[in-house]
Amino acid sequence: MRVVDGGITAPMGFEAAGTHIGIKRVKKDMAMIVSSTDAYAAGAYTTNTVKAAHILWDKEITDSNKPVRGIIAISGNANACTGAREIRDNELMAQTMADLMDVDREQILTAATGIIGLDMPMDTIIKGEKILYPELSRRREDAKNAAAGIITTDTFLKEMAVELNIEGKSVHLGAMAKGSGMIHPNMATVLSFITTDIAISPKLLKKALLDSVKDTYNMISVDGATSTNDMALIIANGMAENPIITEENEFYLKFAKAVAFINNKFAQDIVHDGEGAGKFIQVDIEGARTENDARILAKAIVNDNLVKTAMYGEDANWGRIMAAMGGSSAYFNPDKVHMTFSSEKGKIVLMRNGEPEEFDENLAADILSERDIFVRIRLSDGNEKARAWGCDLGHEYIRINGEYRSRG
Amino acid sequence: MRVVDGGITAPMGFEAAGTHIGIKRVKKDMAMIVSSTDAYAAGAYTTNTVKAAHILWDKEITDSNKPVRGIIAISGNANACTGAREIRDNELMAQTMADLMDVDREQILTAATGIIGLDMPMDTIIKGEKILYPELSRRREDAKNAAAGIITTDTFLKEMAVELNIEGKSVHLGAMAKGSGMIHPNMATVLSFITTDIAISPKLLKKALLDSVKDTYNMISVDGATSTNDMALIIANGMAENPIITEENEFYLKFAKAVAFINNKFAQDIVHDGEGAGKFIQVDIEGARTENDARILAKAIVNDNLVKTAMYGEDANWGRIMAAMGGSSAYFNPDKVHMTFSSEKGKIVLMRNGEPEEFDENLAADILSERDIFVRIRLSDGNEKARAWGCDLGHEYIRINGEYRSRG
Repeated sequence: MRVVDGGITAPMGFEAAGTHIGIKRVKKDMAMIVSSTDAYAAGAYTTNTVKAAHILWDKEITDSNKPVRGIIAISGNANACTGAREIRDNELMAQTMADLMDVDREQILTAATGIIGLDMPMDTIIKGEKILYPELSRRREDAKNAAAGIITTDTFLKEMAVELNIEGKSVHLGAMAKGSGMIHPNMATVLSFITTDIAISPKLLKKALLDSVKDTYNMISVDGATSTNDMALIIANGMAENPIITEENEFYLKFAKAVAFINNKFAQDIVHDGEGAGKFIQVDIEGARTENDARILAKAIVNDNLVKTAMYGEDANWGRIMAAMGGSSAYFNPDKVHMTFSSEKGKIVLMRNGEPEEFDENLAADILSERDIFVRIRLSDGNEKARAWGCDLGHEYIRINGEYRSRG
Repeated sequence: MRVVDGGITAPMGFEAAGTHIGIKRVKKDMAMIVSSTDAYAAGAYTTNTVKAAHILWDKEITDSNKPVRGIIAISGNANACTGAREIRDNELMAQTMADLMDVDREQILTAATGIIGLDMPMDTIIKGEKILYPELSRRREDAKNAAAGIITTDTFLKEMAVELNIEGKSVHLGAMAKGSGMIHPNMATVLSFITTDIAISPKLLKKALLDSVKDTYNMISVDGATSTNDMALIIANGMAENPIITEENEFYLKFAKAVAFINNKFAQDIVHDGEGAGKFIQVDIEGARTENDARILAKAIVNDNLVKTAMYGEDANWGRIMAAMGGSSAYFNPDKVHMTFSSEKGKIVLMRNGEPEEFDENLAADILSERDIFVRIRLSDGNEKARAWGCDLGHEYIRINGEYRSRG
């Protein structure tokens, strides 16, 4: 596998476009991706009980394993919590693109991110789709436009492409994502899209996606909130003409590794670019009794407001980490905890075998002054491990999410 | 039941004292409570896996149902996460007081709140106990001193007393608590103590306490963190000489109501006095399928950073509430949600039957400008309800918990 220049249109048979259609005031707010042939799709969806219309729509399509032909995504409106209207509006958005392509509307996946509870400006959206459709191309610029069409307050585009060799055939994966940002301060949402020309069974396509999401998107936290709109989609059109992968063989593993690589990179990018995030915190739990315990502990730490504010304050406050772990539902033996903090500046041991360790406060302050901080916790309860990523909690988060006095 | 002047020494047979012994620099840091006769005790303890030494000590004593004679509490040091030392230090603290009283050390309950991971200054503590013991009295002033001895960054003392008539006998409950505050920025801890002269079986004493904690201390959140030191204790010495309560009769209910009244008041006081809290948010869930669903939903809302920052920003951002509810593990039907915000300034309906409701933005801003905000959510899933209390999340929280650069 090697990283290559390119984005969502890197694989064969995919075209994309993105533009400003008028949902937002100035920035791009619509993206379109099409495959020139039928493609299988798989999705990982938010677990929030309150689901935006596109989540229900896409899930039904991907569960059916029927081939799809395109994706229409808008940013600036979540199309969520508007009662019965959101379902109709979502269908109309899919129908409009399907008509342009002369396919069934069930072959069009949809996505939306933005303000919750506002009716969709359907005239603007329908008109926008008609304007955008002729712009579709494989050009690098149009892939970038598509990536720009889905972002909100992200400060940089998230896109990439990788190339694999599968039985002598060159296979590509192209990807784009948006991170946690808010338009008006309503929701932090992750949307992620991967296109690929690999030939693979829908079942294994889904497995590769879900396995990677478990270790990537499900292990990041900007503020602990679960969006109503979160989604990761992958679509595969088989145009690379490799012998179709139908078993978990070496080729499958190669492909799954590429999917994991992309989602791992995006997940970290999203935390780096989290709203108001000044620091990136990576937490490793090792020696846990079960994988689930390890996951819960790692996430409990990156989600804890006291840990997050301590990191903001660059304070080696390991007691807050112990308390955050203890406050979770996971099992661990506190009397055996080994804990270190590290960064580019060095490493300190804070606990050894459950006993606090004397450490150099100056070195600690130096380590925590870096942007990327690594917390490593070794337990003596088993052999399982997990890694989670989060960010600090400081004044910038409050400013973005709290200092807002009107909907204007 | 009527509220009377007084604190922890209001019931017969209880004496208290509090002073500065030198754990903290200036403020009072030790409290002592004794009963002149054997008293039954019950406790509700933190569920954190990491438990301070006094939690383990007190739990063993209260589980045994053996009578106790006193409580020694210190503030400024959590006596937690110091490995094997904390257990020995806690025993020594109990032993010292037991020696002064000429009782067994298992008759002394202990409590500590403060910095995690620092060794206890045992010389100071032992000396302090010896100084404080002769100060014990029933005077109003000494009850206040005891209440002051356990607080940390609380901005007001939390103490109260109530009187009941049980079969012709005057029964008193006296109480004191400390809220979520940090000494050095380490932990938010709740400690709560109730003394009473009622005669009641240990089993029912425990039931009254645990039932009340479920609806009070377990339904508040300042920052979602669970302390290693949280504890609510109640001790009853029977000196009111009412016929002992051994059944859940009308007298038990009267007593249980008084316990609930005290804990309800303290729980709200603690949120009002939460670190950096500018607003008090009361959330009512009604019409939930189960009581547990109602509790989870109410707590999910008061714990959500996006909801908390919206309240700080005085923004009627109901979408964040829907997302917080949906992100919890509780069941509810989003299509039937009815939601209102209210305060002294009025009331607005934000959702009706799952559909967003137009509302007057000016009135909304006016309502949210108040300090006490009431969020009421009516579901159509059943008949169960719950209430939770929380606070906003703003710059003051970051300042207190994050803007700290040394341990000095």
